[in-house]
Amino acid sequence: METKFNVLETRIGDRKSVSSDLNFADGEDDPFISSLWGIHKTLDALRGNMHKRVFDAETIGDDGSDIEDTQLPPTYVVVQLDPKIPKTTLVWLIDKISGKKRDGGGELIVMKQPLNPDDGSILHLSATKMKFLEAAEEMELMKEDRIGVMREFTVASLEDFVPEDMHLDDFLTPSERQTIVKHELDNIRALAEDDHIPGFPTYSLYEGQSIFHVCQKWGIVTKVYPLHDDEAIKRLGKQWYWTVFGKQPFEDIRLYFGESITLYFNFLGFYTYTLAIPVLLGFLQMLVSTETIPFFCIFNVVWVTLVLEIWRRNSNELAFKWGTIGMTSMDEPRPNFKGAMGYDAITGKIQPQSPRYMTYVKMYAVSLPIVFICMLLAFVIMMVSFWVEDYLKQNEEYIQFVSLPSIIYSVVVLIMNIYYRSLATYLTEWENHRTQSQYDRHRVTKLVLFEFVNNFLSLFYIAFIVQDMEMLRSQLQTMLIISQAINNFLETVQPLAVKYYVMKFKIADKPANPNTPRIFREKGSEDNTPLKDLEIPQLLPDDPRIKQAMAEGKMESYEGTYDDYLELFIQFGYVFLFSSVYPIAALWAVFNNVIEMRGDAFKLCRLFQRPFSRRVKDIGAWQRAFEVLGALSILTNCGILYLSPQLRRGAPGVSEVEWILMFVLLEHVLLGVRYILHIAISEKPEWVRVALAKKSYEWKQALKFERSQKNRRLLTRKFKTDHGTHGQ
Amino acid sequence: METKFNVLETRIGDRKSVSSDLNFADGEDDPFISSLWGIHKTLDALRGNMHKRVFDAETIGDDGSDIEDTQLPPTYVVVQLDPKIPKTTLVWLIDKISGKKRDGGGELIVMKQPLNPDDGSILHLSATKMKFLEAAEEMELMKEDRIGVMREFTVASLEDFVPEDMHLDDFLTPSERQTIVKHELDNIRALAEDDHIPGFPTYSLYEGQSIFHVCQKWGIVTKVYPLHDDEAIKRLGKQWYWTVFGKQPFEDIRLYFGESITLYFNFLGFYTYTLAIPVLLGFLQMLVSTETIPFFCIFNVVWVTLVLEIWRRNSNELAFKWGTIGMTSMDEPRPNFKGAMGYDAITGKIQPQSPRYMTYVKMYAVSLPIVFICMLLAFVIMMVSFWVEDYLKQNEEYIQFVSLPSIIYSVVVLIMNIYYRSLATYLTEWENHRTQSQYDRHRVTKLVLFEFVNNFLSLFYIAFIVQDMEMLRSQLQTMLIISQAINNFLETVQPLAVKYYVMKFKIADKPANPNTPRIFREKGSEDNTPLKDLEIPQLLPDDPRIKQAMAEGKMESYEGTYDDYLELFIQFGYVFLFSSVYPIAALWAVFNNVIEMRGDAFKLCRLFQRPFSRRVKDIGAWQRAFEVLGALSILTNCGILYLSPQLRRGAPGVSEVEWILMFVLLEHVLLGVRYILHIAISEKPEWVRVALAKKSYEWKQALKFERSQKNRRLLTRKFKTDHGTHGQ
Repeated sequence: METKFNVLETRIGDRKSVSSDLNFADGEDDPFISSLWGIHKTLDALRGNMHKRVFDAETIGDDGSDIEDTQLPPTYVVVQLDPKIPKTTLVWLIDKISGKKRDGGGELIVMKQPLNPDDGSILHLSATKMKFLEAAEEMELMKEDRIGVMREFTVASLEDFVPEDMHLDDFLTPSERQTIVKHELDNIRALAEDDHIPGFPTYSLYEGQSIFHVCQKWGIVTKVYPLHDDEAIKRLGKQWYWTVFGKQPFEDIRLYFGESITLYFNFLGFYTYTLAIPVLLGFLQMLVSTETIPFFCIFNVVWVTLVLEIWRRNSNELAFKWGTIGMTSMDEPRPNFKGAMGYDAITGKIQPQSPRYMTYVKMYAVSLPIVFICMLLAFVIMMVSFWVEDYLKQNEEYIQFVSLPSIIYSVVVLIMNIYYRSLATYLTEWENHRTQSQYDRHRVTKLVLFEFVNNFLSLFYIAFIVQDMEMLRSQLQTMLIISQAINNFLETVQPLAVKYYVMKFKIADKPANPNTPRIFREKGSEDNTPLKDLEIPQLLPDDPRIKQAMAEGKMESYEGTYDDYLELFIQFGYVFLFSSVYPIAALWAVFNNVIEMRGDAFKLCRLFQRPFSRRVKDIGAWQRAFEVLGALSILTNCGILYLSPQLRRGAPGVSEVEWILMFVLLEHVLLGVRYILHIAISEKPEWVRVALAKKSYEWKQALKFERSQKNRRLLTRKFKTDHGTHGQ
Repeated sequence: METKFNVLETRIGDRKSVSSDLNFADGEDDPFISSLWGIHKTLDALRGNMHKRVFDAETIGDDGSDIEDTQLPPTYVVVQLDPKIPKTTLVWLIDKISGKKRDGGGELIVMKQPLNPDDGSILHLSATKMKFLEAAEEMELMKEDRIGVMREFTVASLEDFVPEDMHLDDFLTPSERQTIVKHELDNIRALAEDDHIPGFPTYSLYEGQSIFHVCQKWGIVTKVYPLHDDEAIKRLGKQWYWTVFGKQPFEDIRLYFGESITLYFNFLGFYTYTLAIPVLLGFLQMLVSTETIPFFCIFNVVWVTLVLEIWRRNSNELAFKWGTIGMTSMDEPRPNFKGAMGYDAITGKIQPQSPRYMTYVKMYAVSLPIVFICMLLAFVIMMVSFWVEDYLKQNEEYIQFVSLPSIIYSVVVLIMNIYYRSLATYLTEWENHRTQSQYDRHRVTKLVLFEFVNNFLSLFYIAFIVQDMEMLRSQLQTMLIISQAINNFLETVQPLAVKYYVMKFKIADKPANPNTPRIFREKGSEDNTPLKDLEIPQLLPDDPRIKQAMAEGKMESYEGTYDDYLELFIQFGYVFLFSSVYPIAALWAVFNNVIEMRGDAFKLCRLFQRPFSRRVKDIGAWQRAFEVLGALSILTNCGILYLSPQLRRGAPGVSEVEWILMFVLLEHVLLGVRYILHIAISEKPEWVRVALAKKSYEWKQALKFERSQKNRRLLTRKFKTDHGTHGQ
């Protein structure tokens, strides 16, 4: 009893904000506690009023006019809620979103739209001008200053960033504002008092957890998306996907879609250009005699290494220009990073803290073995399919079923892929990586390992176990062309068709999360239109945003660049791993990529919800994945050349052992060349290194400078007074 | 005429300091010019007087007493000049050393000692207290502050560094003061007016060149060394080389000898400890049956990789503790770096500037081919020696000369090494690297490549061409033991003997530079005792420093850690490259290293001139050199195992091709393991990364902090006044 009381008192004493719907069914009917609850309810009511006043003062006070009804701020992010959640949950959530920062809130402006029962409850989020600038500083947003240097924005140096002729309100781009709203939304974290989601006693929360992500996980929030900017997208499209040979408008893409997507298109463009050499070599290789093939092959392999090294330089150059090069694993934690709230060792900010070694233990002790077992499984399934096919071939009675195993295998791989992808995502989430880039890197690594087995291992089997080069060539050709055709279809044609279908016949989209229906049927049947009587600003019924929000809510959401990179990765493997067998693959790749570039652009602009912009400093795990493929291509091509019967016939006097050793030597020389290229080509161009050093020097000097003037005076005084005539 | 006049006027207008002995023999007898020279001479005389006043004010003024005769400051660096240089040169040089910074001087205190005609002219250098502190700040000296954090010293934050109970004069250690004096000495750079060394019209100078290094190059300055500290060295020795199993006193070593030497002893200690595993494996390998040898061999190879990765972490940890981890190629240029004076792109300081690409061009277009030709030559000479030996063996009449070729070969290698070493030094100097670490790295790389050919290629030849494992083992054993014995003799016993010899029989040492005698005979015969009548402070005849300076001047100077690392590198190669053939090599290595550790310590403390302390952040090119040897050891050991007849007999059913492929596969797996270890083990320990990020964050925040308080106010005002009611 005594303890209970103390605990409660402490909790009330500490509390900054408590939602008004604390669950009373927990069996707390002790009179002491009840009276405390009474006080707490009163406090709550008070706080609620105060909060409303603060909120009003903010939305109105900014420019002195009452904007609540006459002029609502623009929508930056749309949040779609399940329509069936109880009102308590909704009030709590809106309270969190719009509450003050010190009460654990997001300080955002929430607007409702006139209700349409079919489409769930839709909230439009915005923020005050001041909030945007403050958050921009807190997020360490990089902006170009007046003299064109990318640096961290601070409110105090606002004048350095805003050109004379620019209105302050145009300073942050819509895309930046969307990112800021999303960032604030993600960083609404549960306080110590929030031990579960009100209305859902079983959905527990712990201190420091991102409330919004928990709501998404449980399907309370079904969708979150920013709105497209029709004007901008039309302009962008004209320069981007409606030209045939035009250069991609990277700067405009970055401003609209953010760094992550721009870097993908940069990589795609760069890689496609550099394919020119392999295409040329492919043609030459078909023309010349077989003895000279090794030379082309060697050149090809060196070229791959060079391309990847140069890309790394390019990518660092871009990262510098975009101000993302300094991102480290010490940066702000991702919303789903779990850990007790504590002072960050670097910044001193209060952030979730979790020891890094736990992540390592989980990675190496659990995830790694699981991933290897999955890879092994995929390998075994592949082998079984080969064996069955072989068996069918050898038995005349089953000869009509000979293509059945490979069809079944394809289907099994498809299904495995789906399950493995959620497994990889789950494992990576559980490993609890601190930053988004770490999370992405480890997730991509897991996925790529598995994809490698599925996509390339059958080729390895054919090349080095079956040793049938004709079969390898035809298999390579089939896989390359079919995979490219399917991908292009899935990416562009299919969503386009779906879009028309949805638009024309108005098929209601199902809730994104399969868990939701079951859960809500249990709980939320009491009050069905929860938004109606909430005291938050409401859009006018004829506001065009309502229609836009609902239309874009029905679009598919862009899941990140993973699939796009994966496609390139697989293509890269098909082109380079066995380039000596099927050199013309490079031509197919170029052909595909030119279409892909436009297709991806079109898809992003027109078929998908606008993605939130994401800052990245490089292509993450993909750089290493491509590099490993590059190194493997040395091994495979040397192996293929060694097995080539044409070449073997060209050297009849050479013994079998000498023949092997020749290619082992060749392989080692090529690996050596690769290592030397890697060392000799520095990661960053000279000018970037100088600029970075300069920046760091300037930071260091910033404090020193003010003091330097005083030194002589200070020292002279010091020696005169303190230290008399103690020897030199 | 007109032009000439203008040029001169400009030069006089610009000049801050002109030496008083400008050469009049250049044929400038035009009356105009003569009159200008007149003005210039007057100016010069004036400046000379002023400078003397300033100098006196400094040396005396510091603590209010006249120290010139009664109490001279301690000697930090001794400079030995050739006794035969003309007085003009000497006056100019002393002028430069003691002149004001703005006149291109070093601002050091110069003292002479009572003349002893045999030993050349010896100058004792020191500096004022104030100068030391100012220079420490300018050099960005790292000091531990009161709370134990290494950070850059600044005069303004002096209070943070000096503990309560420490006298300010004890703040900088003698070793730091020596480094500061040397740094100032090295950074006396020629002004635009200094186009040659006065007294030597042919020794040209250009603006920005380090005057002191030119004087050393031409033998005007024969020796520069700091003095030992007898007390400290006795204390150090007791803990260091007079113990058998004691831990090396790294912190004391660092304080006395600096980071570069300490890091060597750290590496030596670490590497010797980690040899325990190979020793153990070596014993086991001798006991077990031959079939299990591959397992030991594999373990050994993985161990090498691990050791080097862990060392890199350790070394980064040390570098962080010592505050050297942030050193980059953008740091202060080395004294011999050539280039026109200009503003540095990073710091804005006036420093020699030279484009980096010129260095690359020189490296790749000239040095690289030359180095390869030398390596090829060494290889050819080795092959010739083998062929001759073979020939002698086959002819019975020459059988008594059979060991002659290898003796001749050894002598030739010795001679080649000497010449190649100066070639490599010359080339690296000519490549004009900006920082000392770059210079060292590229010089070491060149030397190591050549040493590799000389030391290991014969073993490769025996192992893989002759394929005689017995011969390989005996050759390995001979080379390992002989090289270790010779090295220990050369390093410790011989200098010890020489020292006694010199001490006992007082043999005058010859000038270090072979050029000098010839040149000075031509020029400097006019005035023979130039120091006598110079107006600089003179040590009393009974000052113990005089004896010490002369005694230590006769000692050998320590040429840097190159030879010590090279010894370890060669040993590392002998131990690991063929560890499957001669596993017990590791034991010899441990035995040698335990002696080596004491020997090197003794040699540094007792036999050599005290070296200047040097700051380094890692072991430079050696890290990579050892890593490459580690990778090569995978190749060689797999090769040896493949050739091993015992193993081959153990697998009679395996075909020759399968047998090769097995080892090729093994090799690739091991290389893969190496790559994964390299990726999985991060370069820096977590705490170092956090600490670095924190530092950089603090720098960044330093300026932001003061402003952050004003933001709200500033913004509110801004929105109220400037921007009226422009939409959100």
